[in-house]
Amino acid sequence: MSSPSARGRRGRGRRAADQVRQEILQAAGDLLLESGMAGFTVEKVAALAGASRVTVHKWWPSKGALAFDGYFTVVASTLDDPDTGDVATDLTTQLRAFVHLMRDTRAGLVLRELIGHAQIDPELSTALRERYALPRAQRFIDTLERAKRKGQLRADVNSEDIVCQLWGACYFQLLVTGRPPLTDEFVTSIVRNMLVGIRTGPPTADDAGRRPAGVS
Amino acid sequence: MSSPSARGRRGRGRRAADQVRQEILQAAGDLLLESGMAGFTVEKVAALAGASRVTVHKWWPSKGALAFDGYFTVVASTLDDPDTGDVATDLTTQLRAFVHLMRDTRAGLVLRELIGHAQIDPELSTALRERYALPRAQRFIDTLERAKRKGQLRADVNSEDIVCQLWGACYFQLLVTGRPPLTDEFVTSIVRNMLVGIRTGPPTADDAGRRPAGVS
Repeated sequence: MSSPSARGRRGRGRRAADQVRQEILQAAGDLLLESGMAGFTVEKVAALAGASRVTVHKWWPSKGALAFDGYFTVVASTLDDPDTGDVATDLTTQLRAFVHLMRDTRAGLVLRELIGHAQIDPELSTALRERYALPRAQRFIDTLERAKRKGQLRADVNSEDIVCQLWGACYFQLLVTGRPPLTDEFVTSIVRNMLVGIRTGPPTADDAGRRPAGVS
Repeated sequence: MSSPSARGRRGRGRRAADQVRQEILQAAGDLLLESGMAGFTVEKVAALAGASRVTVHKWWPSKGALAFDGYFTVVASTLDDPDTGDVATDLTTQLRAFVHLMRDTRAGLVLRELIGHAQIDPELSTALRERYALPRAQRFIDTLERAKRKGQLRADVNSEDIVCQLWGACYFQLLVTGRPPLTDEFVTSIVRNMLVGIRTGPPTADDAGRRPAGVS
C-alpha cells in the first residue's frame, strides 16, 4: 500500500514518526489548496508524503479529518496570536489575518468548500468541529480570557459568544451574504461595535461592569 | 410537460397567475422541508402545484432560485418583524424566532443543506444571496434603521455589520462550531453584548454618540 517517493521511507523512531506526521499534514494542506476537495484523496496525500495509506489511516480516521488538519497546518502560521497588551489591537490583528487569508489566497475558496461539504456529510461535519472550529476558537477565547484577567473586558461576558459575534460575522459574509470582499474596515467596525456597543444613551443597571465617565 | 393535479389547471388572468405563483412557492417549500435537496426537483414541484414545468421555469431561472424562494415562503410567516418601540425587544424577538425555527423544526437541517450546496454550486450561491440572505437581512436592517431614527442606536453604526454580528453569530453556531443547540439564552447574551459592548472602563473619545451617565 505504500508509495515510493523522492523523500524515501521513514524509520520507526519517535522523532521520525513525528516528522512523518508533519509531512503528511503539510502534503494534505498543499494538495487541498492546489486541488480543492475534488482532487483530495488519502492515496494522493500518502504518495506526496512518502508514507503508506495504512500509516495515514492510523492517525486520521477519515478523509475529512485529514483535510481539516492539513488545512489547519498550512494556514496556522498565518494566524498567529498576538499579545500586545491591548485587546482591541489583538482582536483586530487576528481577524484581519483571517480576512486577508480568505480574501487574498485560495484558502477562502477551500474553506468554503470544506464547510459546504460539512453541511451534507456528517463525518466531515465532525471533522470541521473537532479539527478546525474548536481549536481555532480556543485561540481566540484565550485572547479574550487574558483580556478579562487584565480587566479590559467585562468578567461576565461569555467568550464563546464573542467568538460567534466576531468570527461569526466574517463567516456570515463568506458563506451566506456573499457581500464583496471582506475588508479591513469591516474588521475595524465589528471590533469597535463589540467593544463599545451600539446603543446610545447613558448606562443602565443592565450595564454592570461598565463604569461611568470620570470614574477611573 | 404539464402535470394534472387535483387542483386542476389555472386560467391566464393576472389574479390567477399570482395564485399559481403562490401555489408553486408553497409546493416548493413543502417539498423541500419534506425531502431535502436530495428529493427536490422542478418536475415534482410543478406536479404538486398543478403547473407546467415551463411555467415554473418562466418565473425561476434555476432549481436553486425556486428552492430558496420556496424555503423563504414557508418560513416567512414564522419570522415576522415586531415593532414594540424597543430595539432590544425587537432584535431579541426576531433572533429567537429564527433560533426556534433552526432548533425545533426541519427548517434548520434544510437551510444547512441549502447553504452547504451553495458553497460548491455557483448557481445556488447566487440564489442564496439574492433570494434568501439579502431579503432576510433587509428586514433586520429596517428594524435597526428604525431604532437609529428613534435615537436608540448610534447613528454612525453600519446596520449591515450589525446583521453580521447578530445573525452571523447564529449561523456560525449552526454551520461551523456545531455547538449544541441554539438557545434563547444565547440570543439574550449576543443582543446584550451588541447593545452594551463588552469593554470595561470609562467611555473614551472613540465612543462618539454614547453619552456619559447622568447626562440625559
